[in-house]
Amino acid sequence: MTSKTEPKRKFRVVGTRPIRHDGWDKVLGRAAYGADVKLPGLVHGAVLRSPHAHARIVKIDTAKAEKAPGVLAVMTAADMPVAASQVLDLGEEVTNATYASDRVMARGKAVYNGHPVAAVAAVDLNTALEALRLIEVTYEVLPSVLTVEQAMAPGAPLVHDDLVGDDIGERVEHTNVAEHIRYEVGDPEAGFAEASTIVELECRLSRAHQGYIEPQTATAFWSQDGKLTVWTSTQASFGQRDALAGVLMRPVSSIKVVPMEIGGGFGGKIGIYLEPLAAVLSRKCGRPVKLVMERRAVFDATGPAPGGIVRVKMGVDDKGLITAATADIRYGAGAYPGAQINPASVCVFASYRIANARVDGYDVVINLSKTSAYRAPGAPQATFATETVVDEICRRIGMDPAEFRLLNASKEGDRRVDGPAFPRIGNVEVVEAIKGSAHYRSKLGPASSPAKKRGRGMASGFWQGIGGKSTVTISVNNDGVVSLIEGSVDIGGTRASIAMQAAEVLGIAAEDVHPSVVDTDSIGHTDLTAGSRTTYATGAAAIKAAEQVVEEMKNRAALAWETDAGNVRFEDGVFSNAVAKGQRLTFKELSGKLGATGGQISTTGVVNLRGSGGGSFAAHLVDVEVDTETGKVEILRYTAAQDAGKAVHPAYVEGQMEGGAVQGIGWALNEEYVVGDDGVMQNATFLDYRMPTTLDVPMIETIIVEVPNERHPFGVRGIGETGIVPPMPAISNALRDALGLRLTELPMKPGRVMAALKAQAAS
Amino acid sequence: MTSKTEPKRKFRVVGTRPIRHDGWDKVLGRAAYGADVKLPGLVHGAVLRSPHAHARIVKIDTAKAEKAPGVLAVMTAADMPVAASQVLDLGEEVTNATYASDRVMARGKAVYNGHPVAAVAAVDLNTALEALRLIEVTYEVLPSVLTVEQAMAPGAPLVHDDLVGDDIGERVEHTNVAEHIRYEVGDPEAGFAEASTIVELECRLSRAHQGYIEPQTATAFWSQDGKLTVWTSTQASFGQRDALAGVLMRPVSSIKVVPMEIGGGFGGKIGIYLEPLAAVLSRKCGRPVKLVMERRAVFDATGPAPGGIVRVKMGVDDKGLITAATADIRYGAGAYPGAQINPASVCVFASYRIANARVDGYDVVINLSKTSAYRAPGAPQATFATETVVDEICRRIGMDPAEFRLLNASKEGDRRVDGPAFPRIGNVEVVEAIKGSAHYRSKLGPASSPAKKRGRGMASGFWQGIGGKSTVTISVNNDGVVSLIEGSVDIGGTRASIAMQAAEVLGIAAEDVHPSVVDTDSIGHTDLTAGSRTTYATGAAAIKAAEQVVEEMKNRAALAWETDAGNVRFEDGVFSNAVAKGQRLTFKELSGKLGATGGQISTTGVVNLRGSGGGSFAAHLVDVEVDTETGKVEILRYTAAQDAGKAVHPAYVEGQMEGGAVQGIGWALNEEYVVGDDGVMQNATFLDYRMPTTLDVPMIETIIVEVPNERHPFGVRGIGETGIVPPMPAISNALRDALGLRLTELPMKPGRVMAALKAQAAS
Repeated sequence: MTSKTEPKRKFRVVGTRPIRHDGWDKVLGRAAYGADVKLPGLVHGAVLRSPHAHARIVKIDTAKAEKAPGVLAVMTAADMPVAASQVLDLGEEVTNATYASDRVMARGKAVYNGHPVAAVAAVDLNTALEALRLIEVTYEVLPSVLTVEQAMAPGAPLVHDDLVGDDIGERVEHTNVAEHIRYEVGDPEAGFAEASTIVELECRLSRAHQGYIEPQTATAFWSQDGKLTVWTSTQASFGQRDALAGVLMRPVSSIKVVPMEIGGGFGGKIGIYLEPLAAVLSRKCGRPVKLVMERRAVFDATGPAPGGIVRVKMGVDDKGLITAATADIRYGAGAYPGAQINPASVCVFASYRIANARVDGYDVVINLSKTSAYRAPGAPQATFATETVVDEICRRIGMDPAEFRLLNASKEGDRRVDGPAFPRIGNVEVVEAIKGSAHYRSKLGPASSPAKKRGRGMASGFWQGIGGKSTVTISVNNDGVVSLIEGSVDIGGTRASIAMQAAEVLGIAAEDVHPSVVDTDSIGHTDLTAGSRTTYATGAAAIKAAEQVVEEMKNRAALAWETDAGNVRFEDGVFSNAVAKGQRLTFKELSGKLGATGGQISTTGVVNLRGSGGGSFAAHLVDVEVDTETGKVEILRYTAAQDAGKAVHPAYVEGQMEGGAVQGIGWALNEEYVVGDDGVMQNATFLDYRMPTTLDVPMIETIIVEVPNERHPFGVRGIGETGIVPPMPAISNALRDALGLRLTELPMKPGRVMAALKAQAAS
Repeated sequence: MTSKTEPKRKFRVVGTRPIRHDGWDKVLGRAAYGADVKLPGLVHGAVLRSPHAHARIVKIDTAKAEKAPGVLAVMTAADMPVAASQVLDLGEEVTNATYASDRVMARGKAVYNGHPVAAVAAVDLNTALEALRLIEVTYEVLPSVLTVEQAMAPGAPLVHDDLVGDDIGERVEHTNVAEHIRYEVGDPEAGFAEASTIVELECRLSRAHQGYIEPQTATAFWSQDGKLTVWTSTQASFGQRDALAGVLMRPVSSIKVVPMEIGGGFGGKIGIYLEPLAAVLSRKCGRPVKLVMERRAVFDATGPAPGGIVRVKMGVDDKGLITAATADIRYGAGAYPGAQINPASVCVFASYRIANARVDGYDVVINLSKTSAYRAPGAPQATFATETVVDEICRRIGMDPAEFRLLNASKEGDRRVDGPAFPRIGNVEVVEAIKGSAHYRSKLGPASSPAKKRGRGMASGFWQGIGGKSTVTISVNNDGVVSLIEGSVDIGGTRASIAMQAAEVLGIAAEDVHPSVVDTDSIGHTDLTAGSRTTYATGAAAIKAAEQVVEEMKNRAALAWETDAGNVRFEDGVFSNAVAKGQRLTFKELSGKLGATGGQISTTGVVNLRGSGGGSFAAHLVDVEVDTETGKVEILRYTAAQDAGKAVHPAYVEGQMEGGAVQGIGWALNEEYVVGDDGVMQNATFLDYRMPTTLDVPMIETIIVEVPNERHPFGVRGIGETGIVPPMPAISNALRDALGLRLTELPMKPGRVMAALKAQAAS
């Protein structure tokens, strides 16, 4: 880690690497995950899923299942309320409650393979599974659309007869295109006319799953007094509460969501899946009901990132300055409208200053499970096209890819294609960091055998992040240790990163802040852990609460010293009296005097941060070696530079950068949904869905760049997502360098590499 | 219920009788109590207790137990740290950490029968119990002192060789008198010289147990990172945390106490008992350990109310005005210094204005378990003597007992014998309420048989209550329902009474406040649920938090209406714009607009209420019928009047009044510790320790008097305790009326009544 830009403020806690507060719980295996929930009278459920990608449900006969010994409740869509057509705002996504309800339990027809059609609660899991076999469903199979091309073809079968599409503000009926958005600046056609070099590529991408180790799980208890409690693995306890309220048509305050520890999310655990089914089963049988997905259901019926087709065209003048760019982005949202076409359109050209640009984004429904957020949702696919086009341009005009990026980099004040101007950003600084790295200056070296070829590639990436609502309560103990209560689920170490920000303000050690993640009844509204918002926004709430603590502590010191609070100074964790030398108390010492100076201190910090989270840029550099006899690509060296604003816990920032790179490597080289013509995924296991293992990746080198985020008191930027944006184009660019050919379809798996080599040889 | 004094404020929620928020959980049996705690890897423990009241522990050999199959840990005092001689402030009690440690696990010698000497954790309870039999303890039995007289006799065996007594400020060594306090006003001897009638009585009382249905229980997990979590049935989650920190010599912040639902406390569940043993066993075996007391241990080794000897002398002049009074109060504290001699001394004469008075109070250690708080701790025993003396005086001078009380009643501004002047109080009003009651005006009627005699008695009582520290956090949901987080354990319906106070401020229904009692990590310091403080002080914190919510809501309304916040009015749950007619929003409506006007609202209210809680007086009237052939006393009619200041939830106020009366009836007539010369209690079961059943008591008539408490925004007084003060003297006075003889020893059980009748006949 090399810190490139130091802010002036001197930090004592922020920027250090303390052991995480929940470390022992995690290491010793006693952190409680969703599947660990045990309750008196708990029963177990199972879900019957559609074997068809698209089928009318003619009849469901549950009579035999209901009569089976040990079965306590059987449910279908008939047991769900007909959700009002209200709009659910779930933080990263706005959706229609009817679709949200239909998605978790098919009403009338199944629109994806794995779509729930019924569920059973029974005394044990085996009884529930056996009961599923007794449910008789009569389907009328319908023709399906499985790709963007199929769905957009004239006369295509409709996923939803009632879908009303929005075509740049125009209402369109009988369509599979839920939304077509357009952003435009300047005059792209005139810009291309000024270009001396124009490159256009069309890229194709498979949907890719987040691949979290812990499958979805939900336990629900619907009390006879109408109160519903849900224990679940979620990134969004309050979002789940809102979604459940919408789907079950209950007041939000009648629902308590208890977020358990989470075994990976990456955006895939924002929405509801099993929760409403467990709730309805519990209402029917009066017992708490637990549902746990098997891996097949996770692949079939949760939300991976969308695949699709992205076409990007860019033109540059003689000096290498970009004169124009256009993008056409078509994502397969899955069976219900998605939420990723907008961020894709925002991010596709974000790394570059482009006076003339147009982006068309299409959100297309197809007969696969609805997609969900996956780390920088929508950005990696679109950026794959942009960054491979940029690489081709550099080759055509003979310019160093880092120099090209520095020349054309977007900077503070530049407007994005969607309108907003950038605040202070670190785009230039991350490219300079890569350019200055030992890796960049190193030679590739000879391949390890004559059949192997080496290449190097670079790519940039951007994610804007969000702010939103967070609440933190801090209470001071008389031993100087404070309790910190937060509503942000901890996925990537945010207990530590938020506690550290409070500790910084309070002038105490990170270990002297005890963070607790609590349920939705026990803290004010807090938005989801996603959008790179948690360390940024919940951190800001912690700072606010801590600042209130300091103010109140000053009053107490003033009482103890019989002086005016205005005379009390607080610096480096020490309160002192400006008008009486020698009167000084550390935070811990003053904490011991709270009882004598007015009692306990407890404060609540509330933030609602509008607009983007300040944004974080990344630049990645990768060396590959390709075996031309097998098509296997080996990652030799990988360096990631990213702007963290201020890295609160550098080890976790590095971890996020490494994690993003590794997931990107998987998506680039191996991960894909292999879907048959019947709409059934053919590789729905971790053996066949080929995620990277430790053997597939080298140590990822990381360079943390720190260009302070002016929207955060400490300059912090959310950094969890950007790291997955550059890997795919960086690897495509490295393969181009190694093989002299351009791969535009993901994943760049051995077969595809071999086919390209064969085509190259034939040409 | 008759409301006697209406405060001017008009209430909408306070004073109503909504269904308790936790009603369903309690009725349906799913509220989780201490014994319901289930944890992964949970193991079970058992405690070996001393069979001797006083014995030196020569040797403990645990080797065989440690080797027994299934035994995971064996502990003795050797496993407890030698607690520093620091002072533990536990809210109602200040104690020495060494004594606190020795009390829960005998070090060197056992000082009461039932004193823990070792404990075992094993895979199941039976294995643990069997292992206890393998522990070999060699005792050297010592002579014991079991009564105040024995303990104060010259040359008495010493309970503690190292006890240093405080005799009105003088240090005394080699004594069993831990403390002798004296309060004095005026010149008692001169006062008696002015008296025309003087009555003196010496009363004797047995120790009495609170008799909560749920025995003590504790589950502890001492994590390898040094964090201790304790799930327990307690009235004082923060007090337990502080006590555990003192005894285990750990920082308070390393301990989290999770208060479970509580099956009765009445003051008996403030201190630690099993918690430190479970903690040490857990530290030794690395597993969570659960301990549950059997009933015998509850009687032998927890803290009942002290018995003792109280001598009161009072003189009145010709007009019936009290000229002087003295009291000598000697309580058997049990094996460690107690905390009840001071409140006893404060309360003994509190109902009367007395210019010349002296109170001597003696806290005496004896070889029985340490006493604990029991509803108005110390007051009932001392008041028993005062109120029977007053009754005798009324008989001697021929004055109506209500008239006497009205003539001599303490009022606002009068000084108590211990110094402080009364604030506004309802002493006169409760006596007037009894005097005006149908019961008072009714005739006794003839006895049901010739062998039976009827009588009527009256008595007054006082308890001052405490204030202290409470914290409440309120968060507003967008459906207008608020979450309320509190640290006060709910024993008697305080979820409702606190939520109602918040609802009153917010202008919403009681049901629209959702209260949660949380653990010590999740809320600011909150003192114990005891001292009649919870509805009073935590209610005040709820009001404070709710007022902050209203202020912030006004800002939001101002934003919505684009006006100045100063123009926003809030009345009867409606926000309105003073400068724009028709602009109005209910709390619920405005809650739905929070997202658009700045985001969520979450506030924390903190109070630290010094001094008394304002005090609550009671007057009780009882009719009895005595069977002169068996000595059995039947309660024919019972009326209790008490000042609630403002009854937040009248049904719960009535419940507390009824409960106090019933417990007092038990203590008066049947409940006692029958202790043999060996110091062993001979009736340690609920069959033999004779608490009242529904067959023993009539419907208690209640009169709520409302003289507003000027220390609380709504005028609320804590009312949980006073109701147990008058019953014993009221019943003694009724027996005096029925039989013409004075019973001065509790309980007034059939044998004692028969003996008195026999003595009367012989005289």
